[in-house]
Amino acid sequence: RIDAQRLWDSLMAMAEIGATPKGGVKRLTLTEVDKAGRQRFSEWCQAVGLTVRVDAIGNMFARREGRDPARKPVLLGSHLDSQPSGGKFDGALGVIAGLEVMRTLHGLNIQTEAPIELVNWTDEEGSRFGHSLMGSGAWAGIYTLEKVYGLADVEGVTVGEALEAIGYKGEHPARPFPADAYFELHIEQGPILERESKQIGIVTGAQAQVWYDAVITGQDAHAGTTPPSARRDALLAAARLIERVDALMRERGEDGRGTVGQLHVLPNSRNVIPGEVRFSIEFRHPDNAVIEHLAGSFPAEAAALVATNGCALELTELFRIPMQPFDAGCVELVRQGAARLGYSAREIVSGAGHDAVYVARSVPTAMIFTPCKDGLSHNEAESILPEEAAAGCQVLFEAVLARANR
Amino acid sequence: RIDAQRLWDSLMAMAEIGATPKGGVKRLTLTEVDKAGRQRFSEWCQAVGLTVRVDAIGNMFARREGRDPARKPVLLGSHLDSQPSGGKFDGALGVIAGLEVMRTLHGLNIQTEAPIELVNWTDEEGSRFGHSLMGSGAWAGIYTLEKVYGLADVEGVTVGEALEAIGYKGEHPARPFPADAYFELHIEQGPILERESKQIGIVTGAQAQVWYDAVITGQDAHAGTTPPSARRDALLAAARLIERVDALMRERGEDGRGTVGQLHVLPNSRNVIPGEVRFSIEFRHPDNAVIEHLAGSFPAEAAALVATNGCALELTELFRIPMQPFDAGCVELVRQGAARLGYSAREIVSGAGHDAVYVARSVPTAMIFTPCKDGLSHNEAESILPEEAAAGCQVLFEAVLARANR
Ligand SMILES: NC(=O)NCCC(=O)O
Ligand SMILES: NC(=O)NCCC(=O)O
Repeated sequence: RIDAQRLWDSLMAMAEIGATPKGGVKRLTLTEVDKAGRQRFSEWCQAVGLTVRVDAIGNMFARREGRDPARKPVLLGSHLDSQPSGGKFDGALGVIAGLEVMRTLHGLNIQTEAPIELVNWTDEEGSRFGHSLMGSGAWAGIYTLEKVYGLADVEGVTVGEALEAIGYKGEHPARPFPADAYFELHIEQGPILERESKQIGIVTGAQAQVWYDAVITGQDAHAGTTPPSARRDALLAAARLIERVDALMRERGEDGRGTVGQLHVLPNSRNVIPGEVRFSIEFRHPDNAVIEHLAGSFPAEAAALVATNGCALELTELFRIPMQPFDAGCVELVRQGAARLGYSAREIVSGAGHDAVYVARSVPTAMIFTPCKDGLSHNEAESILPEEAAAGCQVLFEAVLARANR
Repeated sequence: RIDAQRLWDSLMAMAEIGATPKGGVKRLTLTEVDKAGRQRFSEWCQAVGLTVRVDAIGNMFARREGRDPARKPVLLGSHLDSQPSGGKFDGALGVIAGLEVMRTLHGLNIQTEAPIELVNWTDEEGSRFGHSLMGSGAWAGIYTLEKVYGLADVEGVTVGEALEAIGYKGEHPARPFPADAYFELHIEQGPILERESKQIGIVTGAQAQVWYDAVITGQDAHAGTTPPSARRDALLAAARLIERVDALMRERGEDGRGTVGQLHVLPNSRNVIPGEVRFSIEFRHPDNAVIEHLAGSFPAEAAALVATNGCALELTELFRIPMQPFDAGCVELVRQGAARLGYSAREIVSGAGHDAVYVARSVPTAMIFTPCKDGLSHNEAESILPEEAAAGCQVLFEAVLARANR
């Protein structure tokens, strides 16, 4: 049995790093705050005899040896980076619960057959550099290291520079090594489990998504002197496109997701008609075909809409992730774990992207969800109960142990 | 006769302070760059025997004594602050042309009857602290010093702090002193003079305007997990309001102006539905009644629109300036000056706000416009010809001299 109190205490201790006044966490990837979180995690791992190694994209692997040196490791983990105004549990739960699994094995002096490796993936959120699942994506070979190192934040700091600045450009290659399985515990970040009073979500896969960068160019001009007929207002054009992004996914019903989350106006002065607006666009849907179709038609439709406002659109597709089903065997271990422990559970498709999605391309993978209050995430008010964290952690323990000893 | 070459050289020398790579100027009010511009201006004034004094809001007055100590001074001037990506001439033309008037009087050893004072008004643009015509507004008693000192920029720096930081919180009271007249030369910032090939605009007044601060509050939530029905997207609500602002003034025809120039998204992360958007709104129209009617109906209409998107609106009216007619006598001096010099001219209403608008409340006032390329202003590409600057300066010289010697 895992130690629910120790798990909760460590979750709260990690949440101190980057704590915000409103009770959330700001631990943006590859910042000094992220570094502090990584150091604390590292110390905790070493305290229970784990060997920590870091790869070239900053992913951290904390290894516990197994009895059989020929066996491939069972992986578990998640991410310690957060949104700019994120919650205490998004990512941290999976890492700290993984640590609790390790501590429990250590405390009970259990030696598993296969080795176990606890992972903290770099930049899962994608908030800073525009590519969610970045560390796992580089590891899985979705992105070349060269490309990832060159990605820059809004201040122009690149991933490569940021890794070096916090001393986490590790020496180990960032590429898939043979692994037996990967298990990730995460909060659902949506309302389904809570609404149906389920303790555990047996995640069968994650939905498809496509992300863009958009730049609309009009012309800066004086707000007081420039008549309607002479305006090329980039913000007005952006406003129309924002509405269209929302409408496009609403047309696909309750499963559709269309979001503009980040936007910058230039020159951003009250009495200047904006000449440039830079913003993000993303679409998601559980059905691959919907995203494929949209990714085909959206660029031309968006450009035409912007042109009718006298402006020009530059649209860059950042990445596209197809619907990713998880491994039937691993999913079954999660299902059995929840059943054996007597937890109420249901199958669920993840609305969020997770490192598990990229890991699943080369390693048999499954995820475990726990409910969160009001389905709220990417919000400082994100909240879960200690017993919900413990239930998820216990299922994780069962699944990992079953796999490592099979 | 003024010296056209000296005028142009000084315009270019001032444009070096805060010069941008794209050929514009960034000399935001009360910054170190603004300070450098003020110092250069001050040295130039002292070199021709003017006495410079600074008032409590940083307005600078450079005085040239007249022959009759009983006469009230004739004022002329404009502003040296710029937009974040502004041009070389918006404001600077009026100040540097005023300096050229002083230099010409000095060079010709002319003693006028009345004293003459050249003014550099603080923060005309309003870009940084949200109140255009701030220095002249404080001087004219539109704003109390207490209120103005407390206004903050987006970084939280107040006007009071910024004034002290650059050493321009002067000892002279910021309130109207008896003055005989005020003349301001400015680029038109619109297309009318250029379109009609006129060298001089005889400005009869400035249009009405109202400015707001808007904050829309929705709820931060995960872009991937939050279904359409559960979204309270503050940026989507803002987009609809941006469209409405534009439409409201288009409904009033070519004279209508409705603009959202500044906008900030929170938390501004790609995969977070925005929970808060803060932005500026302004409306202008030459007809007072239009702005009065709009200022009456807009707050309720806007709140209702935002509410239909599940969000809340907090709207603050920052200021409202009625249509301001200029003084018939002063306007006549401008008309006569242009006629005597043989310049083509037409009457015009200013689309932009100018310090002259507030000064006109207590001092007989007129303005002179010169054309600018493509009517473009509040843009780094803002451009005028040396002979256009010279023509405006010569008319200014004539009007000021006529008034000071009447
Ligand atoms: N789990 C999570 O919030 N991931 C961030 C990437 C995404 O937007 O789905
Ligand atoms: N002249 C000028 O650009 N003034 C700035 C204030 C305004 O927006 O009208």
